Amino acid sequence: MAGNGARPDAHTDLLWMARALEMARAGAVRGEVPVGAVLVAEGRILAEAHNATVALSDPTAHAEVLVLREGGRRTGDWRLTNATLYVTLEPCAQCAGAIVLARIPRVVYGASDPKAGMAGSLGNLLQDPRLNHQSEVHGGVLAREAGVLLQTFFRERRKA
Amino acid sequence: MAGNGARPDAHTDLLWMARALEMARAGAVRGEVPVGAVLVAEGRILAEAHNATVALSDPTAHAEVLVLREGGRRTGDWRLTNATLYVTLEPCAQCAGAIVLARIPRVVYGASDPKAGMAGSLGNLLQDPRLNHQSEVHGGVLAREAGVLLQTFFRERRKA
Repeated sequence: MAGNGARPDAHTDLLWMARALEMARAGAVRGEVPVGAVLVAEGRILAEAHNATVALSDPTAHAEVLVLREGGRRTGDWRLTNATLYVTLEPCAQCAGAIVLARIPRVVYGASDPKAGMAGSLGNLLQDPRLNHQSEVHGGVLAREAGVLLQTFFRERRKA
Repeated sequence: MAGNGARPDAHTDLLWMARALEMARAGAVRGEVPVGAVLVAEGRILAEAHNATVALSDPTAHAEVLVLREGGRRTGDWRLTNATLYVTLEPCAQCAGAIVLARIPRVVYGASDPKAGMAGSLGNLLQDPRLNHQSEVHGGVLAREAGVLLQTFFRERRKA
């Protein structure tokens, strides 16, 4: 069971992940690695973003970090204890670490990332009992769609 | 041996770490957890910052992430392959992950963080052979000064 009023619901998860996929697609059009994220609290979007590493010349500008940053700004509190984070790709170490810092109670992701994923693949920073926060994690939501988007992007880039 | 022209030198390391400590002290005055960072390339400061989580309502606003972001902005390149990062406290998972994303060749830190440090204490994300980048890491520079600053800050905060 998710704490802080975040009631998991398969249909709701699909809807928000579809929105995160839209963000990922918008990123691909701009030449960014197509990963999208949506931060939801009380049934509303608090922030949404796609990777923007290239556009911002910012190594930290992954979709997850961008929505956590914007979510804190909008709520006026760096603790986002009421929000669910949807992201199309399993978070990397930076993003998993940021999710822990923000005290996000629930994370839903799409495709697994065997090369860098830290929510179960290479490691699991989101559920490390030694850290001061653990999140509920649910992976594999619209995973195929998220994976195809990434594969197509990298295939096109190799051609270019 | 550090790659990319980053020649380690004990005296130089001390000077830059002293600057990072100044940043940490400036953070403490503003009620931020006193951690400071300086990003140096070709003998010059590319960016410097202290934690600003409270001021920015940003869970990701650790000193390291702030200097990486600013360093990318200033150079126009998210790959900071020519820079050394000095930070007064061992990086957490988020910051270690961000350092990997930015391809920082060399990291020098002050105090170890047994509760959250991911550059040797709880884990070592900076030298994980499974990730696509590894940094040279040198810890313990002005560690006592950095540790006393943090301990004093938390002791004062408990009193308040």
